[in-house]
Amino acid sequence: MRVSEFFLSTLKEAPSEAELPSHKLMLRAGLIRRLSSGLYSWMPLGLRVLRKVETIVREEMNRAGAIELLMPAVQPAELWQETKRWQKYGPELLRIKDRHERDYCFGPTHEEVITDIARREIRSYRQLPVNFYQIQNKFRDEIRPRFGVMRAREFIMKDAYSFHPDQSSLNTTYTRMHEAYIRIFSRLDLEFRAVAADTGSIGGTGSHEFHVLADCGEDSIAYCPTSGYAANIELAEAMAVKNMSENPSEPLEKIATPGVKSIEDVSQFFKTESCHAVKTLIIENDHGDFAALLLRGDHELNEIKAAKIPAVGGSFRLASEESVRKITGASSGSLGPLGLSIPLIADRSVALLENFIAGANEDGFHYQHVSFSRDLSHAVIADIRNVQEGDPSPDCKGKLSLCRGIEVGHIFQLGTRYSEAMNATFLDEAGQAKPLVMGCYGIGVSRIVGAAIEQCNDEKGIRWPVAMAPFTVAICPIGLKKSEPVRTATETLYQKLTEQGIEVLLDDRDERPGVMFADMELIGIPYRVTIGERNLGNGLVEFMTRNGESSELLALQEVAGRIQSQITQKNH
Amino acid sequence: MRVSEFFLSTLKEAPSEAELPSHKLMLRAGLIRRLSSGLYSWMPLGLRVLRKVETIVREEMNRAGAIELLMPAVQPAELWQETKRWQKYGPELLRIKDRHERDYCFGPTHEEVITDIARREIRSYRQLPVNFYQIQNKFRDEIRPRFGVMRAREFIMKDAYSFHPDQSSLNTTYTRMHEAYIRIFSRLDLEFRAVAADTGSIGGTGSHEFHVLADCGEDSIAYCPTSGYAANIELAEAMAVKNMSENPSEPLEKIATPGVKSIEDVSQFFKTESCHAVKTLIIENDHGDFAALLLRGDHELNEIKAAKIPAVGGSFRLASEESVRKITGASSGSLGPLGLSIPLIADRSVALLENFIAGANEDGFHYQHVSFSRDLSHAVIADIRNVQEGDPSPDCKGKLSLCRGIEVGHIFQLGTRYSEAMNATFLDEAGQAKPLVMGCYGIGVSRIVGAAIEQCNDEKGIRWPVAMAPFTVAICPIGLKKSEPVRTATETLYQKLTEQGIEVLLDDRDERPGVMFADMELIGIPYRVTIGERNLGNGLVEFMTRNGESSELLALQEVAGRIQSQITQKNH
Repeated sequence: MRVSEFFLSTLKEAPSEAELPSHKLMLRAGLIRRLSSGLYSWMPLGLRVLRKVETIVREEMNRAGAIELLMPAVQPAELWQETKRWQKYGPELLRIKDRHERDYCFGPTHEEVITDIARREIRSYRQLPVNFYQIQNKFRDEIRPRFGVMRAREFIMKDAYSFHPDQSSLNTTYTRMHEAYIRIFSRLDLEFRAVAADTGSIGGTGSHEFHVLADCGEDSIAYCPTSGYAANIELAEAMAVKNMSENPSEPLEKIATPGVKSIEDVSQFFKTESCHAVKTLIIENDHGDFAALLLRGDHELNEIKAAKIPAVGGSFRLASEESVRKITGASSGSLGPLGLSIPLIADRSVALLENFIAGANEDGFHYQHVSFSRDLSHAVIADIRNVQEGDPSPDCKGKLSLCRGIEVGHIFQLGTRYSEAMNATFLDEAGQAKPLVMGCYGIGVSRIVGAAIEQCNDEKGIRWPVAMAPFTVAICPIGLKKSEPVRTATETLYQKLTEQGIEVLLDDRDERPGVMFADMELIGIPYRVTIGERNLGNGLVEFMTRNGESSELLALQEVAGRIQSQITQKNH
Repeated sequence: MRVSEFFLSTLKEAPSEAELPSHKLMLRAGLIRRLSSGLYSWMPLGLRVLRKVETIVREEMNRAGAIELLMPAVQPAELWQETKRWQKYGPELLRIKDRHERDYCFGPTHEEVITDIARREIRSYRQLPVNFYQIQNKFRDEIRPRFGVMRAREFIMKDAYSFHPDQSSLNTTYTRMHEAYIRIFSRLDLEFRAVAADTGSIGGTGSHEFHVLADCGEDSIAYCPTSGYAANIELAEAMAVKNMSENPSEPLEKIATPGVKSIEDVSQFFKTESCHAVKTLIIENDHGDFAALLLRGDHELNEIKAAKIPAVGGSFRLASEESVRKITGASSGSLGPLGLSIPLIADRSVALLENFIAGANEDGFHYQHVSFSRDLSHAVIADIRNVQEGDPSPDCKGKLSLCRGIEVGHIFQLGTRYSEAMNATFLDEAGQAKPLVMGCYGIGVSRIVGAAIEQCNDEKGIRWPVAMAPFTVAICPIGLKKSEPVRTATETLYQKLTEQGIEVLLDDRDERPGVMFADMELIGIPYRVTIGERNLGNGLVEFMTRNGESSELLALQEVAGRIQSQITQKNH
């Protein structure tokens, strides 16, 4: 492709709306343009990248035996009413009325539609298992769209749905999808991690997320370099950890602590570390029931875990200051577990403490020398905290590290949740009607583009992995219009690379070298060949990789071979 | 692809909702499934066809220098307000409110969005011309969706938009697109016709439609086999035609014609042909102005042409019976042109009549021997009728024939309508800001699939052109599970064809031959190889083409070569 026949549109500065490096770079490189809040046009350069991702996803889905179809973006409300999601799904579901005032939505996902297809098409176990997928634009009406394509409202997703006679068949396909995802992200040449995940609102029995690792990622991932264990921090099991400096318990003692409210205040006042204090959180669930959650001062509450504890009873929020005073007799700076008549849930690590500090439920007073075994043996003990760097791995084979990731894939075992709600059954070998067992498998195709840039960029711009690059090679001729030898060498090389199936962007704008180089670095082309009259006098051109690792002079006729060998090397 | 690893779902009978052969066959062959009114899922088999069409469209657009991008389906109302289309576009525009109650629509077309991109991105004549396109799902909220994918609400379209410094540059790209469209429909191997067309509500200065010819087509096309002239009947110029049997004019005579109302009544009463009578239509335009339109009894009004006559003044309807009586003094069965005080517009052919019959504007009376030149010389003469089979071609080089077509492509010269409304300008060589000159070019990608079936089917099912077929060859082994030689020959042939890049559907269901053959014929696979033990004993297999022209026994090792040569032949 010649730049003169393409549409490059680079910017010196990113619009101020962009916060993340990837968002800034996508705008500066002209990959996308904003149409409206959370709506982006994929410009020609960006679309080339998007299509490469799509192609790899499609090839690997096909290889794994999935069958592509294409469902409408607009879906009738009736199906969503069958699964009750029409009511449950919040304002993120973009609801639409047609000219006849009938209800539809712009699909954020397609469980209902595919289950409707399955209940009409699948009659017998002989048609199972089957795994359908599509690559399609979806809409999620985010309250605050941001980060460009990473949290856009309209986005492109690969969503797959598998149907099975039983759990064991689902397990087989689930594993095959897990492997396909690993191949996809490996082929994209991204640093990624598959992690155990919470199943969230889709529901189901098992789930893994695939994260592209990047410092700005919205998700925290806990992993054990020794054992390979990895889980979203939402789910990662926190083991009980014991304070090394724990003293044996002493008699309970109430201390006046005027002005001491936060855990930092307590540490300072008692001249100890925060791990010797306990936080008491009074919470109220959706039914108006209260409970107290106990956490070590240096630990963080994990709300997803806590919501699953029966004594908590589902989703909750911190109780109001008024309720807190009514229940404890104190304000939130002086709360403690002693003497409360509401359920107590202590984190596993709290249950190992024998000599800790906690509020006295009396403003301006704390207890010290509280012993869990002596004073709080009636509390429920549970895992309700986030894991921390250095915690023991739940598989007891090492210590956890934390990193940040961007979720780009998610696979679920749905079970029969949708098939039962929609009466999607099949006849088994005995002629019995049974609900179909389902799995679903998503990949955020457009999000991958942003995530890849988040992982692969430097001060000059994007550094595409070859597999995703819009073009593999940039040819920058210096003095194209003035020099006949430059022109001839440029055309010769362009033809030769193109014939070899290498995607070349020929910068025929006749700009100054600085402008060409800056643009090609900004848009992240992996290899650059600079053709100038001086080197050409010795039959040489300059070959450079985007990572800056090598810049060397090559004979013109060596270039094609060198690029081929670089690409091949990359793919092994 | 093996049928066991694919998803075939054929039906013996089409659902009753389907009227057209193509709609019935698409449902029966399992190409699509209905989700809701005007919403269809593309099943795996149908999607393969859709992708083939998409690929050919994309390749030819790229070859013609157009650059692909991808705009969001959801568009903000603000842009449509700038061009006033938010108000003008009727209920076919699917309007949406987001969670913040802001107005959006599901785009039926993208003139506004692309013009917004152009005004931000294009600054200088040096960036021109440029031609952007996308292939994308669109939504048009049809009041009565029907004919399956041919008039669906959600559909897939290729839409291109070009930007130019002046009309001459637009002409060049317009011609290039015209040629690209001819290549596209030729490669799809469809019988089609490019015709001059009305520009309709999009507006602009020139336009051509591309029609796939089919008896059920919603459009009438007039063409001249001698000269190559072709136009939509909406636009095709009707020349004045003279009655061969015309007598010289005689004195006007008023005749009592009790009960004579229609043109048929008149012909019968006066014992003459309808071409010797004139119909008078009293119409009322949107401003409440009336006019009388005069047409020969055997001619049909063309409303699009009439609306363009200044004396008519835009779109109109037939006047109410009440208004008609007020203006003429008669009811609609006795209307005539004589003595009316409203503007008279006579079709060109009426202006040649010298001895005709017309209503007397008095119930139960007609005039005979009306002479246009003597009695109606004050009338405006204009082309306001549809052409008819056998009319002279407007280029005077032959006679017109009529046929029916399905519109699958439309190219427009938009001029500056959108760029002026949205202030999309560029700086010309003299540094002057000027509005961009625009063209737009659509192809109904999903509609092509239906149109192709409408053109290519028989009593057994679909007859795909090779270029669009979901698979090129079907292999039907007889007794696959029982016969080792059949199994070996089948696998050998399957491997060989696949290695040669030929798309094969191997029917490994072990069904009876009749079931396999009926399915493969229904879904329209162009070539079929039947492998049975008996023929195999002589080293032979049966090779058949879907059109039934040839069925012959071939040596197993000849099959691949024969198919290759058939495909090559097809492409020349």
